[in-house]
Amino acid sequence: MSVLIRGGTIVTADRTYRGDVYSENGTIKAIGEKLDVPAGAEIVDAGGCYVMPGGIDPHTHMELPFMGTVASEDFFTGTTAGAAGGTTMIIDFVIPSPQQNIMEAYKTWRGWSEKAATDYSFHVAITWWDESVHKDMGTLVAEHGVNSFKHFMAYKGAIMAEDEVLVNSFTRARELGAICTVHAENGELVFHLQQELLKKGITGPEGHPLSRPPEVEGEAANRAIRVAQVLDVPLYVVHNSCIESLEAITRARQEGQRVFGEVLAGHLLVDDSVYRHPDWDFAAAHVMSPPFRSKKHQDALWRGLQSGNLQTTATDHCCFCAPQKAAGRDDFTIIPNGTAGIEDRMGVLWHHGVNSGKLTMNEFVAATSSNAAKIFNIYPRKGSITVGADADVIVWDPKKSRTISAKTHHQNIDFNIFEGMTVTGANTMTMSQGKIVYQDGEVRTERGVGRYIDRPPFASYYDALKIKHEREQPVPVERPQAAE
Amino acid sequence: MSVLIRGGTIVTADRTYRGDVYSENGTIKAIGEKLDVPAGAEIVDAGGCYVMPGGIDPHTHMELPFMGTVASEDFFTGTTAGAAGGTTMIIDFVIPSPQQNIMEAYKTWRGWSEKAATDYSFHVAITWWDESVHKDMGTLVAEHGVNSFKHFMAYKGAIMAEDEVLVNSFTRARELGAICTVHAENGELVFHLQQELLKKGITGPEGHPLSRPPEVEGEAANRAIRVAQVLDVPLYVVHNSCIESLEAITRARQEGQRVFGEVLAGHLLVDDSVYRHPDWDFAAAHVMSPPFRSKKHQDALWRGLQSGNLQTTATDHCCFCAPQKAAGRDDFTIIPNGTAGIEDRMGVLWHHGVNSGKLTMNEFVAATSSNAAKIFNIYPRKGSITVGADADVIVWDPKKSRTISAKTHHQNIDFNIFEGMTVTGANTMTMSQGKIVYQDGEVRTERGVGRYIDRPPFASYYDALKIKHEREQPVPVERPQAAE
Amino acid sequence: MSVLIRGGTIVTADRTYRGDVYSENGTIKAIGEKLDVPAGAEIVDAGGCYVMPGGIDPHTHMELPFMGTVASEDFFTGTTAGAAGGTTMIIDFVIPSPQQNIMEAYKTWRGWSEKAATDYSFHVAITWWDESVHKDMGTLVAEHGVNSFKHFMAYKGAIMAEDEVLVNSFTRARELGAICTVHAENGELVFHLQQELLKKGITGPEGHPLSRPPEVEGEAANRAIRVAQVLDVPLYVVHNSCIESLEAITRARQEGQRVFGEVLAGHLLVDDSVYRHPDWDFAAAHVMSPPFRSKKHQDALWRGLQSGNLQTTATDHCCFCAPQKAAGRDDFTIIPNGTAGIEDRMGVLWHHGVNSGKLTMNEFVAATSSNAAKIFNIYPRKGSITVGADADVIVWDPKKSRTISAKTHHQNIDFNIFEGMTVTGANTMTMSQGKIVYQDGEVRTERGVGRYIDRPPFASYYDALKIKHEREQPVPVERPQAAE
Amino acid sequence: MSVLIRGGTIVTADRTYRGDVYSENGTIKAIGEKLDVPAGAEIVDAGGCYVMPGGIDPHTHMELPFMGTVASEDFFTGTTAGAAGGTTMIIDFVIPSPQQNIMEAYKTWRGWSEKAATDYSFHVAITWWDESVHKDMGTLVAEHGVNSFKHFMAYKGAIMAEDEVLVNSFTRARELGAICTVHAENGELVFHLQQELLKKGITGPEGHPLSRPPEVEGEAANRAIRVAQVLDVPLYVVHNSCIESLEAITRARQEGQRVFGEVLAGHLLVDDSVYRHPDWDFAAAHVMSPPFRSKKHQDALWRGLQSGNLQTTATDHCCFCAPQKAAGRDDFTIIPNGTAGIEDRMGVLWHHGVNSGKLTMNEFVAATSSNAAKIFNIYPRKGSITVGADADVIVWDPKKSRTISAKTHHQNIDFNIFEGMTVTGANTMTMSQGKIVYQDGEVRTERGVGRYIDRPPFASYYDALKIKHEREQPVPVERPQAAE
Ligand SMILES: [Zn+2]
Ligand SMILES: [Zn+2]
Ligand SMILES: [Zn+2]
Ligand SMILES: [Zn+2]
Ligand SMILES: [Zn+2]
Ligand SMILES: [Zn+2]
Ligand SMILES: [Zn+2]
Ligand SMILES: [Zn+2]
Repeated sequence: MSVLIRGGTIVTADRTYRGDVYSENGTIKAIGEKLDVPAGAEIVDAGGCYVMPGGIDPHTHMELPFMGTVASEDFFTGTTAGAAGGTTMIIDFVIPSPQQNIMEAYKTWRGWSEKAATDYSFHVAITWWDESVHKDMGTLVAEHGVNSFKHFMAYKGAIMAEDEVLVNSFTRARELGAICTVHAENGELVFHLQQELLKKGITGPEGHPLSRPPEVEGEAANRAIRVAQVLDVPLYVVHNSCIESLEAITRARQEGQRVFGEVLAGHLLVDDSVYRHPDWDFAAAHVMSPPFRSKKHQDALWRGLQSGNLQTTATDHCCFCAPQKAAGRDDFTIIPNGTAGIEDRMGVLWHHGVNSGKLTMNEFVAATSSNAAKIFNIYPRKGSITVGADADVIVWDPKKSRTISAKTHHQNIDFNIFEGMTVTGANTMTMSQGKIVYQDGEVRTERGVGRYIDRPPFASYYDALKIKHEREQPVPVERPQAAE
Repeated sequence: MSVLIRGGTIVTADRTYRGDVYSENGTIKAIGEKLDVPAGAEIVDAGGCYVMPGGIDPHTHMELPFMGTVASEDFFTGTTAGAAGGTTMIIDFVIPSPQQNIMEAYKTWRGWSEKAATDYSFHVAITWWDESVHKDMGTLVAEHGVNSFKHFMAYKGAIMAEDEVLVNSFTRARELGAICTVHAENGELVFHLQQELLKKGITGPEGHPLSRPPEVEGEAANRAIRVAQVLDVPLYVVHNSCIESLEAITRARQEGQRVFGEVLAGHLLVDDSVYRHPDWDFAAAHVMSPPFRSKKHQDALWRGLQSGNLQTTATDHCCFCAPQKAAGRDDFTIIPNGTAGIEDRMGVLWHHGVNSGKLTMNEFVAATSSNAAKIFNIYPRKGSITVGADADVIVWDPKKSRTISAKTHHQNIDFNIFEGMTVTGANTMTMSQGKIVYQDGEVRTERGVGRYIDRPPFASYYDALKIKHEREQPVPVERPQAAE
Repeated sequence: MSVLIRGGTIVTADRTYRGDVYSENGTIKAIGEKLDVPAGAEIVDAGGCYVMPGGIDPHTHMELPFMGTVASEDFFTGTTAGAAGGTTMIIDFVIPSPQQNIMEAYKTWRGWSEKAATDYSFHVAITWWDESVHKDMGTLVAEHGVNSFKHFMAYKGAIMAEDEVLVNSFTRARELGAICTVHAENGELVFHLQQELLKKGITGPEGHPLSRPPEVEGEAANRAIRVAQVLDVPLYVVHNSCIESLEAITRARQEGQRVFGEVLAGHLLVDDSVYRHPDWDFAAAHVMSPPFRSKKHQDALWRGLQSGNLQTTATDHCCFCAPQKAAGRDDFTIIPNGTAGIEDRMGVLWHHGVNSGKLTMNEFVAATSSNAAKIFNIYPRKGSITVGADADVIVWDPKKSRTISAKTHHQNIDFNIFEGMTVTGANTMTMSQGKIVYQDGEVRTERGVGRYIDRPPFASYYDALKIKHEREQPVPVERPQAAE
Repeated sequence: MSVLIRGGTIVTADRTYRGDVYSENGTIKAIGEKLDVPAGAEIVDAGGCYVMPGGIDPHTHMELPFMGTVASEDFFTGTTAGAAGGTTMIIDFVIPSPQQNIMEAYKTWRGWSEKAATDYSFHVAITWWDESVHKDMGTLVAEHGVNSFKHFMAYKGAIMAEDEVLVNSFTRARELGAICTVHAENGELVFHLQQELLKKGITGPEGHPLSRPPEVEGEAANRAIRVAQVLDVPLYVVHNSCIESLEAITRARQEGQRVFGEVLAGHLLVDDSVYRHPDWDFAAAHVMSPPFRSKKHQDALWRGLQSGNLQTTATDHCCFCAPQKAAGRDDFTIIPNGTAGIEDRMGVLWHHGVNSGKLTMNEFVAATSSNAAKIFNIYPRKGSITVGADADVIVWDPKKSRTISAKTHHQNIDFNIFEGMTVTGANTMTMSQGKIVYQDGEVRTERGVGRYIDRPPFASYYDALKIKHEREQPVPVERPQAAE
């Protein structure tokens, strides 16, 4: 299949210019003004529109088994919803149970993901430690294209990684050239607050944010950063929701540390008043961790994106419908944690970011696509408009308005945290692997054509880290033998 | 016994003025210009000198059993050395072994301390947790005048308190109106670094600072601060040695949190080059935790004192002689940790603080005496020159110079980290409980006359904390019963 | 006259204790539990109440000629209103016109202030520069008890001091041991924004905050701080209203600089929505500089007080009634700037500070009285409860509630920015110079009995500054004569 | 002319990959692995080397008339020296005298620059203000390819721009879509300190840094940033030399402001001990403003580069030989300010940045070339390796070592601030406009072939700024007519 996207303005992370984009067999073949139309090429008219790299959502959980149930969105429906919204790649998570063999878990997830409609990859969580984990991390990097390992600092009694696991895993990751990622919340404090709240009779969803205040996130973010600093390993902090963790990241970056931060579309735009809504289902539908925060945190997160202290945007897309959420009707601590977002991330970020003067278009592309590709070392194959790159491209109409609703979205969930929000700016065409999978409202994704994308280790930031680490190797002091 | 200190300039934390001080039976009875000489009163001529509250060292470890040996300085020799240097009270530590009954440990330490020459009190360490600890904390506060509990975040496999212990103990302290204190180093990282260094053949004292870098301290300080913030409990971070922990404290204070910070005289004045000294004994003599740091940290700590973000100065006085240190000749991790300082703290702080224009005299008094008294709730009985206060008073001659040396000091240790330093400004008279225990080079302390000082709970900062905590109690959302 | 205040709890900046206070001839003569009643002493029952130092308002403008009119509150009515609210001393401002002889201005103000009912003193503004100003600053310090000089960085074309004036005046102040103070707003930017807004048709009071955004204040605060830093002179920044200036002060203090910050009761409690009120008179009544700010700034200012980065609270009491404000009906730039507050400062700070758990009672006393006395070097004569101090004392009933209103206040203005606010905690008795001037709602002040209070130079912070300044004097490099 | 650079590894700001680069007629025509050799193409073997965009030095002063003399390096010799070191474009400065017509000055500089060997452009300084300046700024942007205006906040009595000029010029720049740049030093303080130092007999070069301490720079940087923030204009702060200005920039960026920062190679690597050198000529040779600073500032500047808070590196290349410097033998304030650097910038940054593990190679390219091109809106024509870009390309041998010396450099000055420094990593070939102008030690530049490069206004950061500015336009409050 070959496609010529004609007459648009190409917008990438570092420039904006007029140009046509021609792709063939899944790859971009030519970029230029007024390209000739190759025989047989399908033409997409991008007049008045922007042509941009497809979005990359580096944080999703399709069909995740979690808290006694399974996320309602699977790899096919999830990547399809993404495609409808302009996202052409996800990085999901393999999450072994404690003591579960890591390779076994990895294979299980690979099995589930075969139904994906667009390209994808996997972070692998390290939830426990022994020699087999040490070995499997090596295998995953060397043979399976994994270059990032996730650590949950919360969920005590389940997948929480104590400091000892962090230290072991981070040390191993450095040897392998992988990047460490963390879900940063102090699990011990969360657990304590949950028990205290339940004792006080706070059993509804309003207990959720009370049990996970920003300080709890800031603490864990800072702890992970310090561990990474001491061990000379790069770190990526997922879903920063508050000033406290942003400040920890910002401080570390100012000191020259290789730390990256992700922010979710939801945390940028939804505030914590939702948890005190009188409708339990409405409130419970917003239960995710970290929780939504007050306005001042949103302002800070936007500034984090503007300043580049936060580099990526994601969704933590993890869908649970009302009947699933209902499991926690009498106890907020067992409401399945998760909200949807993959379909709307690009739209809400454009509207609230670019249209409001917070972000330039180039910054939008960086924050929704290119930066994730760079950090997870698949740039410029993904996240760029360059000859030779995968033809994951979208056409974006800055004038198109739409109103977000669960009634019309493609996500397999009965709720939308952006319900009723009208946004201006939307994709009119999504191309994945050179095929048009969405155009003008019509979804054309195909089950199972998505490919697993290998991500090599030792991304560019490792160059500097390795030299630094070697130069700082300690040298013993030569001392004369003491006479005894 | 009655004494009239005549002709001096009284310097307290908040003012400087001419005045005589008259004490009787251990208590200050009168302050004023040109007081009459009561019959039988001994006269101390303070002409040209400053009359100040005796120093309080809130961090000492006399005769501590630690790392397979026992600190060489006992409560008598230690308080005597303090008196010689102008310090009239110490707060030492009861440190139960894991699983040891807290009350039993408390009683053991009280037994040891009976030989003290000046007044003293005890922080009690919480090194493990069960219901008995919860109960004993209550008993200590209610019946034994304890208002501060210590937590070691380092020393893995020994007295380290994991987050779960911190959370339990901090919560209990809040109920009791006690202040929490922490030795802030991430024990997991220290342990990991120690093992790595030994593997690399770094076995000498130079390994000590390498295994405890500033990041490790900053991490723990921040973690303790966040736990205290979430639980609404006041916190006191002992022996801050680096920018990283100072910044954590400063940040918290700026946000209105009730956090206090201590700095040791050694950390202000000795730098980490000592650990690379070719003489093993010299290097090992400086092994203490946290270790001495580079100059930039010293500069920052002085600024911390100037700005009031650090409030107290101490010594962590914990003496081990060369033969004791030698236990770690082949493995720095088993060198007993500790250095002396109680005798010289006041002198070096005056010389390097007041004489250099860093601190005013009033700030000197606050930092060496009054602030500790306020934080540990024994002000104005201690730390002030007021009628009714304990007559713990010193006469300070700003022109007197002396050169510090292990050869001449009164401390029971064969080493002095300030060896050879000439300081100008020294006490010429120390009065404890209204008795002259040091004068013009002559020590007159008496074994066993020191009293245990009860410290009541709920210091003034608790007023605000309690109101805040109550006002922020969560309220459940009233929701209509969902029809089922 | 002699008075015994009996049965109360004495609260000072550094402690809280039961005690009676006995004063005679204007001075505190005795403090103690259950004092005997001297013959002839009036008895004040303070049972259930707190006995505290009278408030000091270090920033007022009584009967100020300003912007074409004269402030409606004079020294008698103003100090009387203060007394009714628990404030027993003010520091007002002598503000020479550009080119006006400084001594002449000083004498004019001293004439006006003779009607004061309580004690007072004067900061003197330096609004221009020549040799006579240099000389007069010396005279004021040496012969007239002035130790603080004010500089307006705004009001271009009127009293604005350019950098050259700042540099000259600060340098002179250092020689004299005086403290510099600044009104920090970049006058050039304010002027520019005013012109732009008027051009855009913004003529109402909503233009006032738009022409003086927080950045304009932050810039000037930082500039003054840097000038003071370079010249080694202590600095006091008046009426900080925003995060930007607070951060500048906080940064400087963290670096060890001797910088102090004041905050007005109004800035802590009133937000900028008032300027968009549909009633012009209401909006205009709030016009003062810097303007009221949004909530986030108020939160930050409270934290500044809690952390001690701001030390004093004041009012900038400067009254203009509706007919005076009306001068700017068509042009917000000529609305006379000023609001009242002297009567309510103590009450609103207690209610919103102490009752809310933000401040301890001791911190309240520090922030309303003792700190100002220390900074302006009249402590402990003012700002303390000590034997020998001036008997400026209040009795404070923490249970007494009242609702603030212009209808009932004693201030000579037709508006109250706290109108309708009910506060709990109020003074029931105010004693000035040992005389009861307010009791249980009855005002008993006397015109003209207030005394001018001399303030000596070289407050305690100068000790350190002088040593630092001398130690840092540059030394030329000795270089061999170059052969020519 | 056509050239094929073969067998190298291409390094750009965002990636590293194997590839050949083919250029023809001054432009890059093809990039790819194993390109065919076009007929007639010259072949450059880049085996084992990196192929990178030529360096851009955004801050030079060729043949500048300054302080009574004229810089010794002219546009030909200067661009030649740059080419020898791997720099292929400079942005120099037009600096009108106060009251001089701006267009006239611009034309003068354009005349001088015609001898340049490589491409160049001009920032234009605004040193005074009237209506003609307002008009000429418009002409320069519309007709002469100028998109940046410079402001000197120092040099009182000469080219210093007071706040009023800043406000006028910044406002005008916003209308035109130009970026403002500042030399940030508080000129008033510098002047005062110079006078004080001379009075104290400090006349040698050691007086230079004493008269321009870091606070003076930090103050001005912050002031310019605040003015830019209030006026919604992008700002570029040249030659940041210290923590103080870096912190001001960092703070602003964290708050989302569009502020950029430049650092000079000299400030990263030379410390202020040079000014106390006993050899007057040596010391004077280092006199430039801002002066070199102590080590801690250098550390901070490196961290600024690593974190991206500083984006560009430059040299402020401005050459004065010993006889010129000698003018200030008896008075450091008249030593011509300036040092050389254009030839060595790339080499010292690679050695101390990349080889030490501080910067990745991609960050090196960004900091030496691409970021300047983006900020000054000539990207990707300059600063990139893309088809269609100007063929300004270098071949960099990471193994080549050389020792820097004035004896061997191509700069027209008798001194080198990096004298004796051995660096590893150097260009072996420099191509300008598709022509080889330097290869293996041989210089082949041609006088006068350098082109003036137009820089269009409204760089990408203006997109966001314009929207923000429009959205924040104030709206008057509608108020009912007051009855009169
Ligand atoms: Zn998570
Ligand atoms: Zn997740
Ligand atoms: Zn310790
Ligand atoms: Zn200790
Ligand atoms: Zn003012
Ligand atoms: Zn005022
Ligand atoms: Zn310059
Ligand atoms: Zn320059």
